[in-house]
Amino acid sequence: MSSTPAYDELTRVWARLHRFNHLAAIVGWDRNAMMPPKGNEARAAAEAELAALIHRTRTDPRLKDRLAAAEGEALDEIARANLREMRREWRDANALPESLVQAKTLAAARCEHAWRRLRAANDWRGFREPFREVVRLAREEARLLAAGTGLSRYDALLERFEPGMRAQELDRIFGAVRGWLPGLVARARLAQRSAAPIAPSGPFPVAAQRALNLAVMGLLGFDFEAGRLDESPHPFSGGVPEDVRLTTRYREDDFLQSLMGTIHETGHARFEQNLPREWLGQPIGAARSYGIHESQSLALEMQIARGRPFVRLVAPLIGAHLGGQPAFDPENLHRLLTRVQPGPIRVNADEATYPAHVILRYEIERPLIEGDIEIEEIPSLWDAKMAELLGLDTRGDYRDGCMQDVHWSEGAFGYFPGYTLGAMYAAQWFAALRRAVPDLDSLIEAGELGPLFDWLRANIWSQASRWETAELARRASGEALNPAHFRAHLESRYVERR
Amino acid sequence: MSSTPAYDELTRVWARLHRFNHLAAIVGWDRNAMMPPKGNEARAAAEAELAALIHRTRTDPRLKDRLAAAEGEALDEIARANLREMRREWRDANALPESLVQAKTLAAARCEHAWRRLRAANDWRGFREPFREVVRLAREEARLLAAGTGLSRYDALLERFEPGMRAQELDRIFGAVRGWLPGLVARARLAQRSAAPIAPSGPFPVAAQRALNLAVMGLLGFDFEAGRLDESPHPFSGGVPEDVRLTTRYREDDFLQSLMGTIHETGHARFEQNLPREWLGQPIGAARSYGIHESQSLALEMQIARGRPFVRLVAPLIGAHLGGQPAFDPENLHRLLTRVQPGPIRVNADEATYPAHVILRYEIERPLIEGDIEIEEIPSLWDAKMAELLGLDTRGDYRDGCMQDVHWSEGAFGYFPGYTLGAMYAAQWFAALRRAVPDLDSLIEAGELGPLFDWLRANIWSQASRWETAELARRASGEALNPAHFRAHLESRYVERR
Repeated sequence: MSSTPAYDELTRVWARLHRFNHLAAIVGWDRNAMMPPKGNEARAAAEAELAALIHRTRTDPRLKDRLAAAEGEALDEIARANLREMRREWRDANALPESLVQAKTLAAARCEHAWRRLRAANDWRGFREPFREVVRLAREEARLLAAGTGLSRYDALLERFEPGMRAQELDRIFGAVRGWLPGLVARARLAQRSAAPIAPSGPFPVAAQRALNLAVMGLLGFDFEAGRLDESPHPFSGGVPEDVRLTTRYREDDFLQSLMGTIHETGHARFEQNLPREWLGQPIGAARSYGIHESQSLALEMQIARGRPFVRLVAPLIGAHLGGQPAFDPENLHRLLTRVQPGPIRVNADEATYPAHVILRYEIERPLIEGDIEIEEIPSLWDAKMAELLGLDTRGDYRDGCMQDVHWSEGAFGYFPGYTLGAMYAAQWFAALRRAVPDLDSLIEAGELGPLFDWLRANIWSQASRWETAELARRASGEALNPAHFRAHLESRYVERR
Repeated sequence: MSSTPAYDELTRVWARLHRFNHLAAIVGWDRNAMMPPKGNEARAAAEAELAALIHRTRTDPRLKDRLAAAEGEALDEIARANLREMRREWRDANALPESLVQAKTLAAARCEHAWRRLRAANDWRGFREPFREVVRLAREEARLLAAGTGLSRYDALLERFEPGMRAQELDRIFGAVRGWLPGLVARARLAQRSAAPIAPSGPFPVAAQRALNLAVMGLLGFDFEAGRLDESPHPFSGGVPEDVRLTTRYREDDFLQSLMGTIHETGHARFEQNLPREWLGQPIGAARSYGIHESQSLALEMQIARGRPFVRLVAPLIGAHLGGQPAFDPENLHRLLTRVQPGPIRVNADEATYPAHVILRYEIERPLIEGDIEIEEIPSLWDAKMAELLGLDTRGDYRDGCMQDVHWSEGAFGYFPGYTLGAMYAAQWFAALRRAVPDLDSLIEAGELGPLFDWLRANIWSQASRWETAELARRASGEALNPAHFRAHLESRYVERR
């Protein structure tokens, strides 16, 4: 008989959850990438039934005692890490009454639905009403999660996306960025003023773009026997580690959008495809945090794909698929991919101005959740911060202002910081990687990406949720999160070298 | 409070089953049409978990009392028909011990896996071993199902695919066909000897074939807002009524294979897409039997699409998508689509010789299940019946003989008759339809398919499982299954008119 019966039983429950989540991931991907419109209602009912089943499994009252019993069993280090992650998942699933979860799901669905129409109509006033309910329920959620964890309300939400991260640390990190970013952006723009890039001249047929994207995915090591590339209105990386489903979207006048989007999602995919097989199905085998996941997509999209060596490597592929033209000269492509241009829209932002969008959102959502500001104050705060951080006048433009993202209308507070934390981790990994592989740039330019991926596999992918985030970072790079690497990266790419 | 609490509770259970089945249908479609190979193991585990959940729901011990209590409640006619179907499903799900179901699933998977290799190697001897276990378990299954229903063993298997159909009736029906079919085939071949069709000259690019298929699906009323066409090695119609997923397969040298396959699956799809919305989620809302479903695919593929009026309608579309060539002359296309040519392979068989393949299988699988013959006797029976029915010598060719189908290796006994019952029902519907719409042919040729589909909608699609099969047939066509219509159809198409 096993000497760890409680732990063993827990692993069986989580294996079952893993299989349910597999079903949810595939039908969710299908809904976004394949499903015709009339399938929506039946699909929503089927997905809700599955979500309820998953929730019931996670909130089975027997789990509490089993978790306690497992703590007392003789577990090895791996099992103990797995148990730590089980407990975290269990705590999150059990912190909230089902009535609140349902009310929030419903309010979010309503608000998101209204948002689509009201954003197009630039109607902030109309949006406030459904949004108020979402905020009310998110605050209640934060209050209950905080009570269960001893964290502050915003920290309790942040904990779900970025375990271990706290607002106090974000204040420090983002506060520092605030200090140097506007100056860096200004200097970058000055440096770029003299060398405007040549715009690519389309149209670029979708089939040719797709073939190019597949070729670049292959170059980046995507395993096509364990995943696919399809199309969806909002690109994402879905599916399961054994079968990763990437999507992109195509515009015939702009191949760089689908190409860079595909490279981004390929970064997520390689993490999933390289999670340790022996842990799959258990919480320890899942990718560590949203920020760490984003560090892998940004490793490919920002650190690698916008650097000269990779641009030189990929330029001939672009020409081969889309035909030659002056804009495809590597130096010109590099200019296009590193163009710094403050604009109102986060998803269109370049690498250098992107953090400003995230910091702005963080500085609004945090007091909003803590109850220090009310919805009515959002637009003026938005305008002030946009002026401050990016020198833009966004007054009266709600559509491309505080109504531009879907996140808040869906009640996803605490999510935005992960984007910039991901960029920071990515820069930190590359600083460590460059120490380990000094000739990285020439290897990349020669298409020898093995050493790069070996490092990511050894230090990030294979570690999954083995360590808490700070420890993962220390083991990978010798220190916990250190934003200095991100600043150095931006300085080097956008100011010094040009 | 409801006056029918037991029935109401049952409808909730079946609504839940419907949602679970939705998930199973979508991930099953995905496995066949989308999934890359390395997804297989995790997918199998997830699908098995879902199957177990569905099985547990169907075999919940409380259902027995609830079904009994519902029988005593004041139900309207529709609810009573729904309860009848619930009871049938419940009886099937509860007739077999789970250990037998699992053993058969396992043996079938093993045998099917071995079959792929052994068929290619023409290795009947090697195949007998895994096949013996499948037959043993299928006999045990038949014995238990028979004990639960009072039917004979083969009838008990048949009942799952074709409720109400009995071997005694099949003997009578197929016995009659045996009498006239060889003569009809001989006369058809004689009539066709003088006019060999011109073969289409490929290659036909897949993209062009796909565009043609989509156009023909549109012509046949497929609702693209409630379904899709994709590709898979074994074409099928899957998904859910609200979102039907068709697949086809492409050969660049033969566009008719994918076109006729697509038309066939579109027949299944239109049934699903037109099931009554208000019944969906309950057993009464499901399509009636495999044979009735097949009558809809064959209504389109055989009754309509191989008739001159439709060929004339569709020929310009073929030319528009694949370029003009002499083979696309409507008269020549019609010759191609009505060519009678006995061959060893069922799936390649023409409309006239197809029943011979089905009858042969029926005449072997029935005594096999009843224990009147053993596996060793199959090849010689096969050879004798092939010679008798189609004048072919198949001795020593197991690959294209008794090992050609996947069905038996998967333990699907009682399935084959549905193909020919479907063809017979389709002919019977069209005889009734021609009485109701005397100018059907000229309407079809003019592309006015509305009256045709109105008839199918009113008489078949909208009836779902409202009636037992014989009553459905009587209401639609004035009589229960009458194979004379099928014979008359074949005579008219293949002998008289040419």
